[in-house]
Amino acid sequence: MTTGMEELAARMRDFAQAREWEQFHTPKNLAMALAGEVGELIGEFQWLTPAESSSLDEETFDRVRSELADVTAYLVRLADLLGVDLIEATKAKLEENERRYDANLYRGSARKAPH
Amino acid sequence: MTTGMEELAARMRDFAQAREWEQFHTPKNLAMALAGEVGELIGEFQWLTPAESSSLDEETFDRVRSELADVTAYLVRLADLLGVDLIEATKAKLEENERRYDANLYRGSARKAPH
Amino acid sequence: MTTGMEELAARMRDFAQAREWEQFHTPKNLAMALAGEVGELIGEFQWLTPAESSSLDEETFDRVRSELADVTAYLVRLADLLGVDLIEATKAKLEENERRYDANLYRGSARKAPH
Amino acid sequence: MTTGMEELAARMRDFAQAREWEQFHTPKNLAMALAGEVGELIGEFQWLTPAESSSLDEETFDRVRSELADVTAYLVRLADLLGVDLIEATKAKLEENERRYDANLYRGSARKAPH
Repeated sequence: MTTGMEELAARMRDFAQAREWEQFHTPKNLAMALAGEVGELIGEFQWLTPAESSSLDEETFDRVRSELADVTAYLVRLADLLGVDLIEATKAKLEENERRYDANLYRGSARKAPH
Repeated sequence: MTTGMEELAARMRDFAQAREWEQFHTPKNLAMALAGEVGELIGEFQWLTPAESSSLDEETFDRVRSELADVTAYLVRLADLLGVDLIEATKAKLEENERRYDANLYRGSARKAPH
Repeated sequence: MTTGMEELAARMRDFAQAREWEQFHTPKNLAMALAGEVGELIGEFQWLTPAESSSLDEETFDRVRSELADVTAYLVRLADLLGVDLIEATKAKLEENERRYDANLYRGSARKAPH
Repeated sequence: MTTGMEELAARMRDFAQAREWEQFHTPKNLAMALAGEVGELIGEFQWLTPAESSSLDEETFDRVRSELADVTAYLVRLADLLGVDLIEATKAKLEENERRYDANLYRGSARKAPH
């Protein structure tokens, strides 16, 4: 079975190959591209209150969805080049965090939340 | 069918609920958390040459995989709260880019590459 | 007259030279280091409300000041390598913004604020 | 004596006041704005080799200088609101790093360089 992630990775691979952009797609460069896109995403939220960020107007929502797509594309491409399975890596991390942040101990506390 | 992404989103939802951390998980805050994790990821690559970034030693690779997992977790959680399907949004963006960056026109050119 | 900025740049230059770290201090790498430090800075604010971010406890304040110093150090070093006078460049940008964002037109509006 | 930094801070203060943008200028929001600008800066360098980043063409240089100005503006404004003297904080940090990274011990080593 091909998951959505794998299909995205394959398409990004073809996209880069067809344009001979593989030479630019080193992990170092892709990490920068990812950071650049996250910068654009954060720009959408910077002047909004936390409450406003939960109920975006349609125009902002469309831009945010577009930025989330850019972030995902570079993240998937970077992981593909490094041979990292994002779903598996994230599952493993969540299991670690479930152990590390005991629900009873950390309930409702921002201070003790991970950062 | 539940894709890997949807399973991750559901687990993040449960994780936040069990700790009463939903109050902190506004899109604004999650965009910040995402940026923070991307900052840690980029820190792993900053002093490496592009070539070195393509052949990480085991220790660095493990840290990078761990950072990629953190990035994915916050990205999935943010998209879930906003009701954005990351796979669909990214597919749509790739189709747009395939049209926008004609393979024959943009071949091998860093200058004209998107940024 | 030596401004504070110029003194910082000179000390960063000596610091890098004494450790033979100039080889790592390309503008590309320094932009990444800057992004990494900004990621740490943003991590300090991510779970705080806007109001809480205006009245930090002493411990958080000390960490924020330390991150601001790291950001400043890499910013000054990057500008020094590129031959950019940060004070002059920022003054020019402020003048541009003062013209661009007419006070009467943009008063109190988040929507129209620059992003 | 007014240093360049203090003059910038005063102008940013007046700029925000004249537009009633002080309400948006919480430390949390300004940290986001700073991250957004650093994202734009990093976007200028992402597809360049480290060597290319050291000899920018005029057009790229102008954009980079403009982004450095935006980064400086938000950094100065954030520090002003928090009451942090950036020059003093950075000097203190450099002294700490001079002790921490002994020149003889860390000479020429990327691995041991701070990140």
